[in-house]
Amino acid sequence: MYVISISHKIATVEIRERFSFSKEEQEEFLRLVMDQGHYEECVILSTCNRCEVYFTPSPANAGFEAVQEMEKLLTEFKKTELSLLLKYFLVYNEEKAIQHLFSVTCGMDSMVIGEDEILGQVKDAYTRALNLKATKYMLNTLFQAAITCAKRIKTDTRLSKTPVSIGTLAANEVFRFGGDIKRVLIIGMTGKMGTIIMKNLYGKENIQITGTSRNHNSIEIINREYRNLRMIDFKERYEYIDEADIVISATTSPHYTITCKELSESIRTGKERLFLDLSVPLDIDREITKINGVNLHDIDFYQQISRQNFELKEQETIRAAQMIEEHLDNAKKEVIFHSFLPDLPDIGNAMEKIRPANLIYELKDRANSEELSVMLQLVRKLL
Amino acid sequence: MYVISISHKIATVEIRERFSFSKEEQEEFLRLVMDQGHYEECVILSTCNRCEVYFTPSPANAGFEAVQEMEKLLTEFKKTELSLLLKYFLVYNEEKAIQHLFSVTCGMDSMVIGEDEILGQVKDAYTRALNLKATKYMLNTLFQAAITCAKRIKTDTRLSKTPVSIGTLAANEVFRFGGDIKRVLIIGMTGKMGTIIMKNLYGKENIQITGTSRNHNSIEIINREYRNLRMIDFKERYEYIDEADIVISATTSPHYTITCKELSESIRTGKERLFLDLSVPLDIDREITKINGVNLHDIDFYQQISRQNFELKEQETIRAAQMIEEHLDNAKKEVIFHSFLPDLPDIGNAMEKIRPANLIYELKDRANSEELSVMLQLVRKLL
Repeated sequence: MYVISISHKIATVEIRERFSFSKEEQEEFLRLVMDQGHYEECVILSTCNRCEVYFTPSPANAGFEAVQEMEKLLTEFKKTELSLLLKYFLVYNEEKAIQHLFSVTCGMDSMVIGEDEILGQVKDAYTRALNLKATKYMLNTLFQAAITCAKRIKTDTRLSKTPVSIGTLAANEVFRFGGDIKRVLIIGMTGKMGTIIMKNLYGKENIQITGTSRNHNSIEIINREYRNLRMIDFKERYEYIDEADIVISATTSPHYTITCKELSESIRTGKERLFLDLSVPLDIDREITKINGVNLHDIDFYQQISRQNFELKEQETIRAAQMIEEHLDNAKKEVIFHSFLPDLPDIGNAMEKIRPANLIYELKDRANSEELSVMLQLVRKLL
Repeated sequence: MYVISISHKIATVEIRERFSFSKEEQEEFLRLVMDQGHYEECVILSTCNRCEVYFTPSPANAGFEAVQEMEKLLTEFKKTELSLLLKYFLVYNEEKAIQHLFSVTCGMDSMVIGEDEILGQVKDAYTRALNLKATKYMLNTLFQAAITCAKRIKTDTRLSKTPVSIGTLAANEVFRFGGDIKRVLIIGMTGKMGTIIMKNLYGKENIQITGTSRNHNSIEIINREYRNLRMIDFKERYEYIDEADIVISATTSPHYTITCKELSESIRTGKERLFLDLSVPLDIDREITKINGVNLHDIDFYQQISRQNFELKEQETIRAAQMIEEHLDNAKKEVIFHSFLPDLPDIGNAMEKIRPANLIYELKDRANSEELSVMLQLVRKLL
């Protein structure tokens, strides 16, 4: 198996977009490759972080030519220059290619290590190729093994469930908050952290977002681009604060965005409220917790969780790497053994003619010292 | 097996002399080591270029302590400081030690690559230890294998018979020259080349040497130290030239040491004579070949042979390295297999219970991908 890979490791988002394939394009490309007659199998994986073509050449087309031809097919299909591909791609073959497939499928090659969105994307890519009959023994064996391995990591480790970014941690807090419809007010929504949190929450079920900004241009743009999201001027924040279940403040302002006095004057309804202060210096007056029903988490709280999660994630990454090692080695074994199968009957016959006790001597005569050492180590395991 | 080695690779001749063992000392040291009770086997090799102790510790004494104790025994025996040994020795173990033994025995670790004097020295060292019952399975197997390998290289390659030094080539020319007693006159015998040639010829059967020097001190010293060698003043050279069968001139003089005119005046006897001019600029007038019976070889002649021999020696070194590779690997195999022998009956029994055709599957289940790959490669050789 070969892999041609254009990924976030080398290529910027602009380059990656040049090699981005829609589902229809993927199918069209797979048909094109298979019709070529020079390839046995092909799977194409296209996500926002990578475009990868996994393929096995037909026996007559093995070697470097098969890679060159695939490069040509890719660039012609995407109407880009070959030089662009050659500058930003990586090629793997044999063991390295198998290793890469496992690494990608298990989220170890992702921007956020261990994320499991890629697993679904690999499954889709494989299924697409399978349905078009673009896979045979090799890619079936390896993709199925990689997917099984990734599923095990997903089930048996906490890798994909251990966020370390403050934005994700804060968003998770919102998801966990009780109530049917959750009204969220994000103060400083056009800032860096505000934008991350908005994107984590936007479009999720039962969440209504109101955002503030001091910039009228931004307010207009966001109101136009994001449906079902209300953008207000920073000055109007207290008018919308009573209805909010969760208030997140993430400005870079040197002043409080919420003071206890003004908040207590604005609150008219009695309910549980969560305030998240993700700013340094602090945005929210600590005193507000004296108000009935008001809970406050500040950035220190999330930083501590982030640190704990980071440690946990490190441990889980090691465990996942061990699982990959094991599954990967088994997959390699299958591939090695498969190539041996045609000879098996003859070798079985040859072995039947040798007394088992003599077999070791017969093999010894044919082995060099390294082979002998491995062989003896192995037969010892029969005990 | 371990080796502690003090050799020309690191240690100067002064250091090597501190660790030089006479035959009696070697025997005494072997007895001392074996009486210690901490060693199974020991061979000591002492030549002017190296002092090496090959040993295997007793099972209870395996590991680094066995080396440390041997260092102590060595330095105490030779009444030198441990720090001196530690500064100038090399330690090898396992495969590296076996490799070193082969390399030494086959002359690949010698100052002049491929020389075979070391083979006799290794044989003697081994026989000495064998006679004192200081060798068992391991050193017997490895020394015998190394000696067999060196003998094969000696017989099957021209490595030890292909001199590349001008001094050796010139001396060989003298040995080949016809006649019962060969009288050699060396003009400039106390120079660098003159000394080498004298040492190559001195003490050899049927060779009488006369040497010249301009230095009266040197003449006196050599006349005192070398019996059966006549030292004369440079000015007297023509008085002794008639009796000489072979005249070698190797001075750094800017003038001819032998001119045609003076030579023809000095020669009274009719016989075949060989003149070797090993100097740059030339020492001997080219015209002398007009004199009846006079043959002349100059340094260009020998430099050409030296270059040819150097090329031949390079080829033969490659062939020898291949022979060593082969013998070395077989020796390693023997050692590996020997350690496996105690388990062989049980493993044989276990194998008897498995159908040969199933054996491959049973081994596959117990192998990792690398072991599987080696195993399949090996059983394929049964075809």
